[in-house]
Amino acid sequence: MLAIIFIVSIAKMPEILPNINKLHFIKTANIIDGKKVAQDIQKELKTQIETWIKQGNRRPCLIAILVGEDPASQTYIEKKMAASREVGIESKTIKLPVTSKESEIIDEIQKLNKDDSVDGILVQLPVPEHVSERHVCNAVDPLKDVDGFHTTNIGKLTLNSDTFIPATALAVLELIKRYNIPTFGKNIVVCGRSKNVGLPITLLLHSDAKNELPGGEATVTLCHRHTPPEELEFFAKHADIIISATGVVNLIKSHMVKRGACIIDVGITRITTKDGKTKLVGDVDFEGVSKVAEYITPVPGGVGPMTVAMLMSNTLKAAQHILKKNSA
Amino acid sequence: MLAIIFIVSIAKMPEILPNINKLHFIKTANIIDGKKVAQDIQKELKTQIETWIKQGNRRPCLIAILVGEDPASQTYIEKKMAASREVGIESKTIKLPVTSKESEIIDEIQKLNKDDSVDGILVQLPVPEHVSERHVCNAVDPLKDVDGFHTTNIGKLTLNSDTFIPATALAVLELIKRYNIPTFGKNIVVCGRSKNVGLPITLLLHSDAKNELPGGEATVTLCHRHTPPEELEFFAKHADIIISATGVVNLIKSHMVKRGACIIDVGITRITTKDGKTKLVGDVDFEGVSKVAEYITPVPGGVGPMTVAMLMSNTLKAAQHILKKNSA
Repeated sequence: MLAIIFIVSIAKMPEILPNINKLHFIKTANIIDGKKVAQDIQKELKTQIETWIKQGNRRPCLIAILVGEDPASQTYIEKKMAASREVGIESKTIKLPVTSKESEIIDEIQKLNKDDSVDGILVQLPVPEHVSERHVCNAVDPLKDVDGFHTTNIGKLTLNSDTFIPATALAVLELIKRYNIPTFGKNIVVCGRSKNVGLPITLLLHSDAKNELPGGEATVTLCHRHTPPEELEFFAKHADIIISATGVVNLIKSHMVKRGACIIDVGITRITTKDGKTKLVGDVDFEGVSKVAEYITPVPGGVGPMTVAMLMSNTLKAAQHILKKNSA
Repeated sequence: MLAIIFIVSIAKMPEILPNINKLHFIKTANIIDGKKVAQDIQKELKTQIETWIKQGNRRPCLIAILVGEDPASQTYIEKKMAASREVGIESKTIKLPVTSKESEIIDEIQKLNKDDSVDGILVQLPVPEHVSERHVCNAVDPLKDVDGFHTTNIGKLTLNSDTFIPATALAVLELIKRYNIPTFGKNIVVCGRSKNVGLPITLLLHSDAKNELPGGEATVTLCHRHTPPEELEFFAKHADIIISATGVVNLIKSHMVKRGACIIDVGITRITTKDGKTKLVGDVDFEGVSKVAEYITPVPGGVGPMTVAMLMSNTLKAAQHILKKNSA
């Protein structure tokens, strides 16, 4: 009854409408539209690449190596190839059989390292179990390492020297920036300590803004599989930003989130719903958390497309020899 | 009056005396005796080095480069040279004038890189302002980089691959281990995000115990100059271990510490007392915090001597070509 009166009152008082989204019982989180931002970035990159070519430069070129036939890897590779076409990056996938020896993969990489027409090289992870991911990542010329996984580039990231930042970490940072979400002196919880995602995000967000790679200046708590659930809840509840990259479905629930927080969901898991269909979900209980958070990324359509866009950005950077020039 | 009766009762009941240190009003923290542990480690190293030489190997050799005449740097270098003599490491300090060009310092390093009789090379930091610390650190052969400051070695540390761990971080880890202080799933606050101390400590303590470099498996919150004081207090109060490496005197006070916590004080600042004398103090209000914590490191005599001992350990590792063998 009260609610009805209230709604009627609102209808009669259009001047209070601009403030309506400050009323907690009506509000749901703003969606961080990664798909849209990724398209914006890809448009920007397309323009930059056309300018680059008009200046007399060769079209940037990205080569992906795919070992085996993992369906998820094939999907990721296709997305990367499609984005390359969209922005005007020449691209090709070299498909190697799952039985390839480590030395054969490394030989292939070394050919690409020497090939001056190739700017960016990536090996789609995971590689088959008999192959060392570390050996393969370190075989890529650090100046063509658009994934940012070479030990030297990871070292540079740790030291905040200019380098290729792993695309997922860069995607998270870019989303936070484009939505003007403050990080300076804020509390950030990162869930997941993987060397390719959680840890690079932590390295970027805690560090000094005055370095070659500007950092987020946030207080970062790095949680992982051995953080007890009640401790994760303790830290999450106090966080201004939660970034979850674990692959644990429903890890972040509404009671763990501070009102007004920003939630970045990097997780991506394929689940089977009651009707037998499959769908992609993240680490966050989107429906519940949306009622508490101020900003939230959806899955799919959040960090995923942004990761591909940031890989394109790294490839243009490789083509422009920005790091090569800096290293000279 | 009650207290007097209680004390009399204790005197009459010697069987309860073993439990007396569980009574909070009497208890003070156990001192983590870094000086003693450092001496233990140096004795162990001396034995290992004598064995190494008896096996027909050359005595390990450490060369330090000191640019300029900063008194604190001179003191540190003297301590490193004294420890080398004690454990049986051949050592020498190359003193270069404060006006040395970066290229002259790098030339000196490159000579040492090529010299097969030299196992470990370190450049005492800070270098003069006209010299790039990064260029100098990266000039050292990664396999002789006993400070662990080369970009590639920092990358390996980040990836938990076997490498030279910066001595201060190694010192903190070793003290925690030798006092059997658990880290698995515990909450650790690291204050200070320096690339040589706070960040390597964070990298070591948060990570997986199953890697080449076993990690602490702790939930780590990395606080720094832009963590608001009330937030530092929030995280510190909840921490099982606080590691402070900021150089801010009295940063950690008793009301910020959980009863039973372990406090590792990496700070070292020379202050002038009321009587005009100078003394070294850490980041922690030792007297106050001792009444709350379960374990605490003193300054001096805590992390400082351990850092020198761990540098000796890294030098023996360099001489034994452990990493070279692994890289082959």
